[in-house]
Amino acid sequence: MRAKAYAVQDSKAPLELWEFDRREPLDDDVEIAIEYSGICHSDIHHARGDWGEVPYPSVPGHEIIGTVTRVGRNVSRFTEGQRVGVGVMVNSCGECSACGEGYENYCENGFTGTYGAQDPLDGSVTRGGYSNIITVTQKFVFDIPEELDPAGAAPLLCAGITMYSPLKHWKAGTGVRVGIAGLGGLGHMGVKIAAAMGAQVDVITRNPQKAEAAKTYGASEIVDSTNEAEVSNAKRRYDLIVSTVPVEHDVTPYLDMLAINGVLCLVGAINPMPAYHGTQVIAGRKSIAGSGIGSVAETEEMLRFCAEHKVLPEIEVIRFDQANKAWETMQSAEMDRRYVIDVANSFG
Amino acid sequence: MRAKAYAVQDSKAPLELWEFDRREPLDDDVEIAIEYSGICHSDIHHARGDWGEVPYPSVPGHEIIGTVTRVGRNVSRFTEGQRVGVGVMVNSCGECSACGEGYENYCENGFTGTYGAQDPLDGSVTRGGYSNIITVTQKFVFDIPEELDPAGAAPLLCAGITMYSPLKHWKAGTGVRVGIAGLGGLGHMGVKIAAAMGAQVDVITRNPQKAEAAKTYGASEIVDSTNEAEVSNAKRRYDLIVSTVPVEHDVTPYLDMLAINGVLCLVGAINPMPAYHGTQVIAGRKSIAGSGIGSVAETEEMLRFCAEHKVLPEIEVIRFDQANKAWETMQSAEMDRRYVIDVANSFG
Repeated sequence: MRAKAYAVQDSKAPLELWEFDRREPLDDDVEIAIEYSGICHSDIHHARGDWGEVPYPSVPGHEIIGTVTRVGRNVSRFTEGQRVGVGVMVNSCGECSACGEGYENYCENGFTGTYGAQDPLDGSVTRGGYSNIITVTQKFVFDIPEELDPAGAAPLLCAGITMYSPLKHWKAGTGVRVGIAGLGGLGHMGVKIAAAMGAQVDVITRNPQKAEAAKTYGASEIVDSTNEAEVSNAKRRYDLIVSTVPVEHDVTPYLDMLAINGVLCLVGAINPMPAYHGTQVIAGRKSIAGSGIGSVAETEEMLRFCAEHKVLPEIEVIRFDQANKAWETMQSAEMDRRYVIDVANSFG
Repeated sequence: MRAKAYAVQDSKAPLELWEFDRREPLDDDVEIAIEYSGICHSDIHHARGDWGEVPYPSVPGHEIIGTVTRVGRNVSRFTEGQRVGVGVMVNSCGECSACGEGYENYCENGFTGTYGAQDPLDGSVTRGGYSNIITVTQKFVFDIPEELDPAGAAPLLCAGITMYSPLKHWKAGTGVRVGIAGLGGLGHMGVKIAAAMGAQVDVITRNPQKAEAAKTYGASEIVDSTNEAEVSNAKRRYDLIVSTVPVEHDVTPYLDMLAINGVLCLVGAINPMPAYHGTQVIAGRKSIAGSGIGSVAETEEMLRFCAEHKVLPEIEVIRFDQANKAWETMQSAEMDRRYVIDVANSFG
């Protein structure tokens, strides 16, 4: 099937129209006409080669919503016209103990990323959601509950699950105090999900004025991380802090803000992290943890949770011809919302 | 009450006989004739000034077993002749939220150490168990179950509780794979306690031959941390690793040995710790945690647990005139047992 896409031809090139062939549906495949594709910071990092060698052309996008066009003969869960989603993974080895335990996201052989990976099914390079069509093996396709707005649902597949997994695992809920560090695409979803779980949730940020909006998402307080008095006041306050900070950062101030048995969970810092002092975790039985997206089962659970609790990201819907501009904006400022590309109306 | 002790007069001096006055029992005090006093690495670090300024003379010792000689008038839990213990703390502020939640060991104002601290009750410098007598407020005095050998019980008050608290908190038990890094005074207690909890427990060590003894304590396997094949074989094996390594150390090999959702808990490294990479915790939802001794309630629970499961450390009973030699030995080699001073028979 001939597909249209917005692709990057090298590490410095802008997104430009490109065409390529998607495979015909295999027995377990679901072919999807893409309606919406969220823009994730990872798209930019990947396309720019920040995370290693890239098999250009790169077609980014791993927050995908669309409708089923064709299915392979083994597929009974999905039918033509059904609204579905695809996230960060399109496959995993299925044989390692992580996959066996249902943690495809921690596949010991590395899950197959939705873009820029080698597809184990046909050997091709995977190409993501900045495209009008995608074909994915059924296990990694999600039913999208009818209650969810389709454009809004797109960012749930990456930003949503990345926040949901640690919030659920570390039991955010009634009586639990949660801090969300950083109020970008991930952080603002974290506020909404934690609040929906019943936790008391604050935002910890260097941009307190901008973060005021978070109160409408369910945040109780905004802690200005550049204000010594506010930081000191927040000492020992949180049972869980999820840090969405996507660069190397000193965890000391966050550890200080943890209550006894508190957990600091990194979700953005796929980076070298600086030294720390043993007493920072020993005094108070604290943890520096991490979490990476979520499993297939967690993603299904998250989608049902967001449908039930009416949790959706703040989004700004754009067309593909605005995508290069959107990338620039995302690199120059912390976005407290997610750009979502209206794919269906972007190609002539 | 005039007390005899073995004290260090300055950071370089050996332990030498010294006499000083213990206070007369206050209303909540328990006066204890010390029978046994375990030797902890902390004793040496403290006496040598490694952890800050020391109010010399220093009388170390925070693994104390003895019998009650006198009690203050508010004391009804303890009676003359009863066997009791004192651990690392002799008081805490009692007013902060940590104390309020029953975490005296994480007192926000700092608990009162059994030696070298300022006693809030009389303003004196606290002096520990290398002495024939000690007077401690009742909350920090533990009943020692009759089933416990008194010499063996001494190290439970520090080494025992330091291992018990994280093992219990992170749910060591049937079906849980535990690694104990380092087989010194702490590590060998960790093996025994984890095994008694029903966990499968391995030792991770640079001295595999010496660690063979751990199999008689309940260890399944000895992993030689200097052997690449063994380390690689242990990849993703443990749900919990408790690192007793008491110096700065790279946690990378331990994180590699953790299964999904695994926790590395530091209990010995009251030290600066080196940098790490965010992906080491993000990939597998892992944690770098810490834990410091245990609360009063946890210590009581641990003593009952050890009595019930017949868990006691490996000890070598010495007299005070051998204590300087013991300190030297402990500094030159990893001891897979604990020295315990037979205090009652050490003073003329």
